[in-house]
Amino acid sequence: MDTRKHVEVCFTPGEYKYFKDEYEIVVVIDVLRATSAICTAFDNGVNSIIPVASIEEAREYQKKGYLVGAERKGEIVEGFNFGNSPYSYMKKELKDKDIVLSTTNGTKALDIAKNAKNVIVGSLLNLEVLSKWLAKQNKNILCLCSGWQDKFNLEDTICAGGILEYLINTGKFTSDEDSSIAAKYLYLSAKDNPLGYLKSSSHRRRLKKLNLSEDLKYCLTPNSSKSIPVLKDGRLIKLQSIE
Amino acid sequence: MDTRKHVEVCFTPGEYKYFKDEYEIVVVIDVLRATSAICTAFDNGVNSIIPVASIEEAREYQKKGYLVGAERKGEIVEGFNFGNSPYSYMKKELKDKDIVLSTTNGTKALDIAKNAKNVIVGSLLNLEVLSKWLAKQNKNILCLCSGWQDKFNLEDTICAGGILEYLINTGKFTSDEDSSIAAKYLYLSAKDNPLGYLKSSSHRRRLKKLNLSEDLKYCLTPNSSKSIPVLKDGRLIKLQSIE
Repeated sequence: MDTRKHVEVCFTPGEYKYFKDEYEIVVVIDVLRATSAICTAFDNGVNSIIPVASIEEAREYQKKGYLVGAERKGEIVEGFNFGNSPYSYMKKELKDKDIVLSTTNGTKALDIAKNAKNVIVGSLLNLEVLSKWLAKQNKNILCLCSGWQDKFNLEDTICAGGILEYLINTGKFTSDEDSSIAAKYLYLSAKDNPLGYLKSSSHRRRLKKLNLSEDLKYCLTPNSSKSIPVLKDGRLIKLQSIE
Repeated sequence: MDTRKHVEVCFTPGEYKYFKDEYEIVVVIDVLRATSAICTAFDNGVNSIIPVASIEEAREYQKKGYLVGAERKGEIVEGFNFGNSPYSYMKKELKDKDIVLSTTNGTKALDIAKNAKNVIVGSLLNLEVLSKWLAKQNKNILCLCSGWQDKFNLEDTICAGGILEYLINTGKFTSDEDSSIAAKYLYLSAKDNPLGYLKSSSHRRRLKKLNLSEDLKYCLTPNSSKSIPVLKDGRLIKLQSIE
């Protein structure tokens, strides 16, 4: 009998409904830039992050006195403290704070996955530490890519492919879905130079237009982070233990 | 000014809504096996094919005396004349006939795309003849993969990537979407040996279980067909002219 657990890749939040029932761990990925920013925030001592799907909810929290980040289409929404640039989360004033975040794709994906048994945040930044930790869990794992406005995107898929490749290589995991096979192939062709590989990707070009090249370089350089953010009761915290 | 037309790839019928408005030609692809069977039918002299999305519609046509093919999950639906094996469409009794077809994925994709200005049928079988013809059209082109039960599949994506690769290389087309970039990469790594490349794909394994290895080999061997089926007034016919 094959006792291996499954690790699969879901390309967009829209397809999550075809996957959701079988996985005890869902890894939400939004490399450019929400989940990269979230990992960076925890690296820099943020206490917790409350992800909210809508700008309206974000405003409600702002009224209550929270520091609130809000991004849409790559830009900071007017009236908010910051967007989803990882560099915004390296600031001292955020240390030990509980902050709120709403982004175009990433927080929507977190919202869609919120009822999964365990929701974890993944990015290229915490690829290694996260993969190692996932390998120790005896659970079925789904990597949920946030995509770009409900469409497939390359950078999230490559990150998911990297997690999958690591887990399959442990011999304790298997995968079945064509999306997983494709993600693995794409990761293998990208891994030696993610920044170069993604030079033609649509979102990268979009961010480049917005003069966000530094963000791109940071988000697409793997393994600078040691944080594994996990969703508990609607709030992202740094992983302590898992059910 | 960039006068090149766009060629893009949509991975699943579910994502078609995010693409549909900008493309004058939609190429519907269901390599295993609906669109391969359709190309084969026209190679063998079938007059027209009426694609229907539901089994109920298929039964209505059967009552009216049509020869009707119906397939679900890889098997012929009980009570119908044939399923979607290309070999079923090589028979003499189908020559010059108008037939009806309902399949798990392919006819659903045709149904979703039916309001596009031009709907064309693509498969690995007609990859070359279709790509050459598309290259002569001065139109924006979307390759719509049928997927497998609303999820991404590898064989349709590779076929779409092949069309895209050909068109981009003419210098008259460009592409923007990450799904298109991914399809192209996957095609390039698969093209020398599609059958071997797809050995681990989920649908291939599914058909293998059903003893359909001959079908697989046939459908995954490019360029045996010279037919370009086109949808006109709800009916697939062999291409004569295009608006």
